[in-house]
Amino acid sequence: MHAIILSVGDELVLGQTVDTNSAWLSQQLAAVGCDTFAHITVGDDQQMIQRAIARSAWRCDVLLVTGGIGPTEDDLTRQALAAVMGVELELNQQWLAELDQFFKNRGRVMPERNRIQAMIPRGAKLIFNTAGTAAGIEALLSLPQEGGRESCRVFIMPGVPKEMKIMFERDVLPFIKQSGGGACILSKTLHTFGLGESAVAEKLGDLMKRDRNPLVGTTVAGGIVSLRVNSRFSSREQTQSELDRAVKSCYDVLGDLIYGENDRSLAEVINEWLKLKNETVTIAESCTGGLLAKMLTDVPGSSDIFQTGFVTYSNDAKYNRLGVSTEMINIYGAVSEPVVEAMSKNALRLAKADYALAVSGVAGPGGGSATKPVGMACIALAWKDGVTLRTFNFPGDREMVRDRAAKMALSMLRYHLLKKPMPF
Amino acid sequence: MHAIILSVGDELVLGQTVDTNSAWLSQQLAAVGCDTFAHITVGDDQQMIQRAIARSAWRCDVLLVTGGIGPTEDDLTRQALAAVMGVELELNQQWLAELDQFFKNRGRVMPERNRIQAMIPRGAKLIFNTAGTAAGIEALLSLPQEGGRESCRVFIMPGVPKEMKIMFERDVLPFIKQSGGGACILSKTLHTFGLGESAVAEKLGDLMKRDRNPLVGTTVAGGIVSLRVNSRFSSREQTQSELDRAVKSCYDVLGDLIYGENDRSLAEVINEWLKLKNETVTIAESCTGGLLAKMLTDVPGSSDIFQTGFVTYSNDAKYNRLGVSTEMINIYGAVSEPVVEAMSKNALRLAKADYALAVSGVAGPGGGSATKPVGMACIALAWKDGVTLRTFNFPGDREMVRDRAAKMALSMLRYHLLKKPMPF
Repeated sequence: MHAIILSVGDELVLGQTVDTNSAWLSQQLAAVGCDTFAHITVGDDQQMIQRAIARSAWRCDVLLVTGGIGPTEDDLTRQALAAVMGVELELNQQWLAELDQFFKNRGRVMPERNRIQAMIPRGAKLIFNTAGTAAGIEALLSLPQEGGRESCRVFIMPGVPKEMKIMFERDVLPFIKQSGGGACILSKTLHTFGLGESAVAEKLGDLMKRDRNPLVGTTVAGGIVSLRVNSRFSSREQTQSELDRAVKSCYDVLGDLIYGENDRSLAEVINEWLKLKNETVTIAESCTGGLLAKMLTDVPGSSDIFQTGFVTYSNDAKYNRLGVSTEMINIYGAVSEPVVEAMSKNALRLAKADYALAVSGVAGPGGGSATKPVGMACIALAWKDGVTLRTFNFPGDREMVRDRAAKMALSMLRYHLLKKPMPF
Repeated sequence: MHAIILSVGDELVLGQTVDTNSAWLSQQLAAVGCDTFAHITVGDDQQMIQRAIARSAWRCDVLLVTGGIGPTEDDLTRQALAAVMGVELELNQQWLAELDQFFKNRGRVMPERNRIQAMIPRGAKLIFNTAGTAAGIEALLSLPQEGGRESCRVFIMPGVPKEMKIMFERDVLPFIKQSGGGACILSKTLHTFGLGESAVAEKLGDLMKRDRNPLVGTTVAGGIVSLRVNSRFSSREQTQSELDRAVKSCYDVLGDLIYGENDRSLAEVINEWLKLKNETVTIAESCTGGLLAKMLTDVPGSSDIFQTGFVTYSNDAKYNRLGVSTEMINIYGAVSEPVVEAMSKNALRLAKADYALAVSGVAGPGGGSATKPVGMACIALAWKDGVTLRTFNFPGDREMVRDRAAKMALSMLRYHLLKKPMPF
């Protein structure tokens, strides 16, 4: 079974509102084995809506439309559907009575313009809205018998996410489940940090072949390369077991590169791990200027593993707060392994923490030189028995360099906890 | 001028990722008088991408495509464009050299599969990507002379929002501005912090009427209520002078509530102001855990105004790092005005700064009580002659409470520099 999702609204094509309905609907459809072919968004223009409905109907079994069924002049979805069906709009007395009651309950008289909300194309079915005045519409569009499809089922729902979701779950989903018969789709997302997308893909090799099922794809956001594994079979059992098998294959290939699944962040992983071990971490930040502490404390309950941190942006601060000798800074420069080593060791001691991460780098845009270009960052991890030092060259602008440096510091701690060398 | 925006990615049609690129692009287009006809989203399927490109080209002057130009097998946008153009992909030596260098700079050898990222359809133009390996593509699709349009300009950009935005602004927007024609649209955005959207709207009153030109609208993001003023007239002179007049009216009504225009952040305003006065600020953070320092150091050149900061998350840290007496914490609690007062005064002294901001609050989800509920935060601003103390109750979840508390601290400093009482 195949669906297309059509969103209607000037605020969407003007970019004033981000369309979240389509993603939500796609998720719901995928969960019951219905494929979404495409999302289409058009403005409040009857011709555009009509064309989008007519063209989409040829290409899918079910067309889900949201928006354009309010009471105002720019709500034109019902008119567009009627035009595609070649029929008139007619009044639905039952919904008119409901609307009357809706306003009476609020001590008001129904404005005349709300009457249009009780009009639906002749031959279509009205769908009750339990959360607002915009009734939905269900219609079967018959298609001239040229291609394979004979008809397309159209559901029109409100654009307000809350009303749409209630209506979808109650009146649309049962139809799709019933007539689906198709496959069940289950997915899982695995996150990695440290290697680029192509390096991850290279490791995955054949696992990413486009004709496989489960299908493995990659996406990148904020330096995190994520693998989406989509499994699709006729039975739920097989879908799940094949998903598990494919996920296991990804772990077999990538191993510790995968730091978490679905919604997990690197900082959450660190938080959980340290909580389990009843240990704490402190930070000494120069170029990241508080970002690393912020990431660690983004996680609820982080007070168990993080008690204090040192944001030492200037050289004086590195000396005054952390006792890094001015001589050392003069000899090696603030962005150097000896300096982050001293920062991390002293922070560890002062904060009485189990681990200390120190970062000093050139975030840019200014401050770069031939030997220490923008993007270079030195990171140290100290613990009671030792210290690890690394120097990186991160790409991108100030925000990116700071973000990657902070994530790399978290990664260094993660691999230390794993008792494994960092593979990048 | 009319545009269609095409987004490519399985993660989008599966609903795993909400497409924010299309809304952002539409906003940018609207700002320069280019109408968006439709948004279309398809998965990583070459046939689907091809069809979407071919059909859209007939209906618009410019087609903006995002996504599907990564290095992996499921990145098929460049192949689809080549198929629509009826040409082969050919290697761009210049970008291949850039890619080689990109990996060399990271001490790695370019994986063989990244080579595809230097392939573009013959006759198309490569667009440099300064933030990643996915080069963009610009092509002119000639259309058989049946309808009115002779050609459609296609721009293919990365799906990663950050890379896309940089490329759009640098390489696509100039073309659209240049070939725009039609009415001139100029806009300005004014930012406020501290009052809610409806309170700001109430102050603006008739200025926000929907039939006005310039049109004033409000949006909210991260607690920042922004006014967008869109002026649209046939001549550039009139568009500009009417825009200036409307912006002045907004300032007349809102005054100091407006802290900046267009892309400015509160932290940038603080940075500039302190730089002018040759003064510095330090921070002592409990619940915000580094976020305030991060915001201040997000701004390039912040080392002039920020030298060090104290992230004191635990009570011990408040004592050990800042000398806040354990007795005081026991009596008043860590989230209290006396404690933030001591934090700010001691931080000021230790950091030898001109201003110190201290924040202690209940970020949640845990830790709230009847007298100190989640969302409560005490903020202190200390300077050499005094201290200001305030207690707030911020709405929302952990992320929101932390964000609002940090921004409120910056606001307190801003009003202090303005030598005015904070009006909220």
